Amino acid sequence: MTSGGPGLGILAGGGQMPVAVASAALRKGRSVHIVAIRGEADGAIEAFPHTWIGWGEIGRILKALDSHDCRELVIIGSVKRPDLNKIRFDLGALWNLPRLIGITIGGDDSVLARVVRFFESKGYTVRGAHEIADELVIQDGLAGQHKPSGDSKHDIRKAFEVVNALGVHDIGQAAVVVGGHVLAVEAAEGTDEMLKRCAKLSQWGRGRTKKRMGVLVKTPKPNQEIRVDMPTIGPRTISLAAEAGLAGIALKGGNVLIADRESTVRLADEMGLFIVAVPGDGDVRSSKEFRVSSG
Amino acid sequence: MTSGGPGLGILAGGGQMPVAVASAALRKGRSVHIVAIRGEADGAIEAFPHTWIGWGEIGRILKALDSHDCRELVIIGSVKRPDLNKIRFDLGALWNLPRLIGITIGGDDSVLARVVRFFESKGYTVRGAHEIADELVIQDGLAGQHKPSGDSKHDIRKAFEVVNALGVHDIGQAAVVVGGHVLAVEAAEGTDEMLKRCAKLSQWGRGRTKKRMGVLVKTPKPNQEIRVDMPTIGPRTISLAAEAGLAGIALKGGNVLIADRESTVRLADEMGLFIVAVPGDGDVRSSKEFRVSSG
Repeated sequence: MTSGGPGLGILAGGGQMPVAVASAALRKGRSVHIVAIRGEADGAIEAFPHTWIGWGEIGRILKALDSHDCRELVIIGSVKRPDLNKIRFDLGALWNLPRLIGITIGGDDSVLARVVRFFESKGYTVRGAHEIADELVIQDGLAGQHKPSGDSKHDIRKAFEVVNALGVHDIGQAAVVVGGHVLAVEAAEGTDEMLKRCAKLSQWGRGRTKKRMGVLVKTPKPNQEIRVDMPTIGPRTISLAAEAGLAGIALKGGNVLIADRESTVRLADEMGLFIVAVPGDGDVRSSKEFRVSSG
Repeated sequence: MTSGGPGLGILAGGGQMPVAVASAALRKGRSVHIVAIRGEADGAIEAFPHTWIGWGEIGRILKALDSHDCRELVIIGSVKRPDLNKIRFDLGALWNLPRLIGITIGGDDSVLARVVRFFESKGYTVRGAHEIADELVIQDGLAGQHKPSGDSKHDIRKAFEVVNALGVHDIGQAAVVVGGHVLAVEAAEGTDEMLKRCAKLSQWGRGRTKKRMGVLVKTPKPNQEIRVDMPTIGPRTISLAAEAGLAGIALKGGNVLIADRESTVRLADEMGLFIVAVPGDGDVRSSKEFRVSSG
């Protein structure tokens, strides 16, 4: 489970993606070391070589990476907004204080883009999870056994129009459209919260029908730092979409990660939801796999 | 409290607007008759000549209007989505069944636009509340004593850009922007729900500051049937915006109703929120009152 090449560092937030990336890297013969953020990362990362660190322990992060010969770094997993008053900074943080202040307060670009620049300025190469393990990224076409109906294709097209229209304003990673009507648009609340809201509104626009209707569309924002902030779906996305009564989920192919692909697709199959990835602009007509409506 | 002219019918949903319109019409010397939807309209409408009706009692609505000589009609107030299984239709509904089915299921335009056409086809003239009582509509400029800061003006401009970008998709009546970041976009959930969500996200984007930051912008959608569906704010909008930590509220001048203006403005003044209406496209620079930052 080790390799000749330099080690891969994984700075791990919450969820299943850090473990998925570590497993994929090991399968490819790379050595890995997970630097896990306390209070964020899942205990499952302890199955791999790892170091637990707290927010603000910048010195320990750099030391853990260096002592395990990690010159490449994947930053992945969800993070809650840390309580600034509770962060304890170590000496390494003090040495880097000017840059850290720049990360926290400065600029028009995202905090994550500045985190990437910080590690790059320290000589690390920051890789996207998809560069390490492209099997984690959804590719164009159907991921499960269910297919979008004609109505769902209309909803998909409309939802992509909405998120694309919003992209220039640095929002619009996701939207829900039901029967041609925009039920919800995601801004800062996150996809899970948006889907919970849709479950409460699920009577909306569907009249008396009990059948699944409507779609969740998810795609990166135009300026999203895709190396460290690629949109992700997983089993929870499927169950929340099902509770909202949706018919399925459409993603921008090559641009969305699936955490725990096997469970995610199996759950979608069981619950009757489709998962489809469409090319580039979300125009479902240009997707060959998508156009095929049988077989 | 009566007049020579024809009576004004008010088809009343929930909230304070039906009473506000009735009072304004009486002040102008018109006679009024409120047709109040049971389960929706507030008991306060009983201070005026009125008839309670249930969803589906179309015959009784038309009879109440005709027997009080109401050829003009204002349709106003909030409505919950009625439970179709519980509606009891009267004979008048049966006579109009083909048209009612058209209202419920048909077309690309809104249900309300079709409701208007229904009453127009019966020979009524449907008026907007603002045509009866323009004092209920906010006009360009400041409504209270507080003024937007420079930062708030940036947030206002950004929020108008967002809602205008969404307008073509028949959503985007409202958005919340804090420190240049889009915190929330309203789709089907309504402004109150969006503001409650913002209260939960209120740490977002504001770092350690406790001071009020960010704005709610509210404006009609491009194709909104403004006679029957003008955006409305009231005291509740102010208290929810305050709980979300916002600095104020910006509206499209001449296009948003204020329910209970006195209480609304007083509450905003007390809680330190501004209320400002800006012209047309939401470009705050073109508003004279808005440009003035003192006095």
